[in-house]
Amino acid sequence: MDKLLNETLAAIAAPDERAMAATRERQLSLAKPPRSLGRLEDISVQIAGITGKLYNRADRRRVLVFASDNGIVAEGVASAPQSVTLAQTINIARGLTGVGVLARHCRAEIDVIDLGVNADFSFPGVRNEKIAMGTKNFAVEPAMTREQALAAIDAGIRAARRAKDDGVEILGIGEMGIGNTSTSSAVLCALTGLTAEETVSRGGGVNDAGFARKKAVIDGALAAWKPDPADPVDALAKVGGFDLCGMTGAFLGAAASRLPVVIDGFISAVAALCAARLNPLCAAYMIPSHASMERGYAVAMDALKLRPMLALDMRLGEGSGCPIAFEIVSAALDVLENMATFAEAAIDDGYLSEIRANERFQG
Amino acid sequence: MDKLLNETLAAIAAPDERAMAATRERQLSLAKPPRSLGRLEDISVQIAGITGKLYNRADRRRVLVFASDNGIVAEGVASAPQSVTLAQTINIARGLTGVGVLARHCRAEIDVIDLGVNADFSFPGVRNEKIAMGTKNFAVEPAMTREQALAAIDAGIRAARRAKDDGVEILGIGEMGIGNTSTSSAVLCALTGLTAEETVSRGGGVNDAGFARKKAVIDGALAAWKPDPADPVDALAKVGGFDLCGMTGAFLGAAASRLPVVIDGFISAVAALCAARLNPLCAAYMIPSHASMERGYAVAMDALKLRPMLALDMRLGEGSGCPIAFEIVSAALDVLENMATFAEAAIDDGYLSEIRANERFQG
Repeated sequence: MDKLLNETLAAIAAPDERAMAATRERQLSLAKPPRSLGRLEDISVQIAGITGKLYNRADRRRVLVFASDNGIVAEGVASAPQSVTLAQTINIARGLTGVGVLARHCRAEIDVIDLGVNADFSFPGVRNEKIAMGTKNFAVEPAMTREQALAAIDAGIRAARRAKDDGVEILGIGEMGIGNTSTSSAVLCALTGLTAEETVSRGGGVNDAGFARKKAVIDGALAAWKPDPADPVDALAKVGGFDLCGMTGAFLGAAASRLPVVIDGFISAVAALCAARLNPLCAAYMIPSHASMERGYAVAMDALKLRPMLALDMRLGEGSGCPIAFEIVSAALDVLENMATFAEAAIDDGYLSEIRANERFQG
Repeated sequence: MDKLLNETLAAIAAPDERAMAATRERQLSLAKPPRSLGRLEDISVQIAGITGKLYNRADRRRVLVFASDNGIVAEGVASAPQSVTLAQTINIARGLTGVGVLARHCRAEIDVIDLGVNADFSFPGVRNEKIAMGTKNFAVEPAMTREQALAAIDAGIRAARRAKDDGVEILGIGEMGIGNTSTSSAVLCALTGLTAEETVSRGGGVNDAGFARKKAVIDGALAAWKPDPADPVDALAKVGGFDLCGMTGAFLGAAASRLPVVIDGFISAVAALCAARLNPLCAAYMIPSHASMERGYAVAMDALKLRPMLALDMRLGEGSGCPIAFEIVSAALDVLENMATFAEAAIDDGYLSEIRANERFQG
């Protein structure tokens, strides 16, 4: 293990129970039936536990988008050409893609981090942290070295720290990388012991043969490279991708920095699971967003014991599910701080008895 | 039937298929895998069908809150005293309650309409359209006359028309009325033929005896007053409430005014079902929000063939689920209008070939 990862894993602390208890108490004092705001109440408690403060904001919002190419596309497992990774990485930085519009709509920043896009390029708004020109084809050899995996994880940790330093109050974790549903399924299988059949979706534009090939490639690689289910870094290195590594580091870095962090879809959920396997405490910092249509998403969320808040049938990636979740979190925090208490609502006091005149029933 | 209701039912038209087709076409032109934004795409298509225009906004937002008391509380079916209806109606107008904070957070207006709060009062921001000092106790006699039901429906239609006249672009339908989960369950049973056992939740603060009494009261009233399952106005009059009537009218009025209208929780969903039974075309104007924890909610949504977008375990009512749904709708409309097309994203054109230099794989 490397120094930054070790430091980060050691820095992740349990949530602040006192702040959580104070938040629960205030929720009970608000003028509503107990628990009637459900998960909006839970979010306020969770975030108090993360920051240690009763009242919090989620006004400064950022989506981290890790971009990288995957050698496994040489096996024909993806429905889009690899060049789309480069094009969309640039388009994300230009604000033209799904996450671009949704982030702008929900007043979130985007930090695009190139960990391994298979092109020598620079573009404003794309941070160059390139480790290699994409990973190796894991059908032929392990996707990357352990050192490369650790370097990519470190880049993710640094991205989360940068957000904290910039005053960001809530993070979302997204990606761009053709072929990364294959890497994510493979890593998920490695961590859970499931087969590709149980974690792979057909996806759009893939025919029967392509779907069968995708599953065979994953099962074959798992048999060949035997990733250690107890060592997420090993799984990420052998059958993962640089983007997955960076996202894993970002989840860890967010927890170490006491930042709430939103999970996007399938790929984001697999990275979240890698992070939680490296340090189970970091799950307390995670907030799910939407239920991805990818089959493996539910598997990863079950393993994380998390449940999505949004049922929007999305499967775009890019972190596109995070901005709407930021709005929900922000609304939940506003309710905690600004809804009237029973005392402030003055129910049952003289204020009411003055205007209450003509009641037939007493409750 | 009365004149305004007849006019309104006749004015509800099917969605504009041409605008919907144009929207689907544009969605396919956007730089993303087809259908990868799921229900965000569906929402943009639905709203184009409603307005007849490709591009739409949901910036001007309003929650209609219908407040009324229910005589059935004399049977001990509610966990809060009836005086809470008055207090919370005033607090909603003061912006202090759950819907108040959430609406302000999401930049939505609130129109509070008193259809039968059991008190002679006036308060700024509460519109007096009172029909009576609450309904009768439907365990003893029908809740209201048919004329009263029609008057309350008319008030709801007028509220929706007022919103349209004011330039509102999206409506949400909420309520305040102690005892209205009982009336809603009773109306739902009347329309579907189900028993109270299948539609009643225990709710917060209700003990075993109270829960059993709630179900017995509902089943007893259905047996005694035999509401006509084919006549929602009859069901609303015999075992419903003024709030449910107003909400039903608001759903109809929204559809007749070609306004998208968001369903809140259980009570709102039952009113939506009443509206859809009066004119099935109006379901095309409805947008579900959150999955209420009330048992009958899922029954009503199944009957409407709708599926909620949010899983937040809420059960507050007041229209509190609508503001977050407004944000989702608004984001969906922004994506349609402002996400880049494949042509604009310039994927595969010279723009890319200039910066694409070092690819190992061609897709």
